[in-house]
Amino acid sequence: MARWEPNTRARLVTAAVDLFAEQGYDATTVSEIAERAGGLTKMTFFRHFADKREVLFAGQEIHRRLLADAIAAAPAEATPLEATSAGLEALTGTFTDERREFSARLLAVVAGNSELQERAAYKRATLAGAITAALHERGVPDPAAGLAAELGVGAFYRAFERWASSASQETLTDVTRQAFAELRTALATLG
Amino acid sequence: MARWEPNTRARLVTAAVDLFAEQGYDATTVSEIAERAGGLTKMTFFRHFADKREVLFAGQEIHRRLLADAIAAAPAEATPLEATSAGLEALTGTFTDERREFSARLLAVVAGNSELQERAAYKRATLAGAITAALHERGVPDPAAGLAAELGVGAFYRAFERWASSASQETLTDVTRQAFAELRTALATLG
Repeated sequence: MARWEPNTRARLVTAAVDLFAEQGYDATTVSEIAERAGGLTKMTFFRHFADKREVLFAGQEIHRRLLADAIAAAPAEATPLEATSAGLEALTGTFTDERREFSARLLAVVAGNSELQERAAYKRATLAGAITAALHERGVPDPAAGLAAELGVGAFYRAFERWASSASQETLTDVTRQAFAELRTALATLG
Repeated sequence: MARWEPNTRARLVTAAVDLFAEQGYDATTVSEIAERAGGLTKMTFFRHFADKREVLFAGQEIHRRLLADAIAAAPAEATPLEATSAGLEALTGTFTDERREFSARLLAVVAGNSELQERAAYKRATLAGAITAALHERGVPDPAAGLAAELGVGAFYRAFERWASSASQETLTDVTRQAFAELRTALATLG
């Protein structure tokens, strides 16, 4: 059993997003997800996730940690935005091109359900909180830390939507760099 | 019945926050809230709110509209941040000093429950979306509109927490003006 575990988790996530996209989030049961993931049981599902909603946010903890660790590891002389940028590079580096189509389906499922939108807003706030806390550790005070965090997650989510729906071969890292640069430019136009 | 309606809604909100603070959110039933609000029935409760959670976010729609209307009404020459600021003045102007203690209890209830934190993150995103849309109407492009909106809700929420827990007589409008000014100053330190 143990050697199947990492794979099991990923299979459950893929099966869930497929089923949600095909037949709707509300209409899909945990048993169906487990079955689609290769004849698994509900019990196996619940060893990995608290409920069917959490499957869609399986990455939250690892995303949080990627951001925090990379911001902590940024050079001492990095500015708040440069350290945030280092966090975004680490996070986006894990999104390989084969996740693109999956990401588009995940975004569509979330967009179609207000409960999932709430959960997504919470994930966004959690990631912003992780960036803020990591910048505090570097001595960046409030409200600058929170502001850099908002710019960072803002760039990431804008880029993620663009990347997921794009046919180009650009990586999420490249698209996020552009989005971050656009936000920085836009700052000058706010008045 | 009809002439009681506005009052009924406010009484249900107050009763709910009181009970959640006293005995916990999970332990409180809709029947108890209705009873505490002056011997009302569950049925009356459900004429006003979809469930007990929504009582805590009763202001969302009116807050959204206050922001949107004031941003639309700002002078044509107002910059994106000035228009956002006009929205915040309209929103915060509705928070009278007698709401301060109530607001502190509401924040404590939300902070103690992850389901409520999710819902609060969604309300925040909804208000940011309202500001963004109102700025789009004024011809402010993306990502500047979204950025101004994040600065605006960031200032509002920082100020709201500060105001709710403060013993001073400063209005929420004043505290929000300060928070907004602090955010603008911090922008220059991001590097």
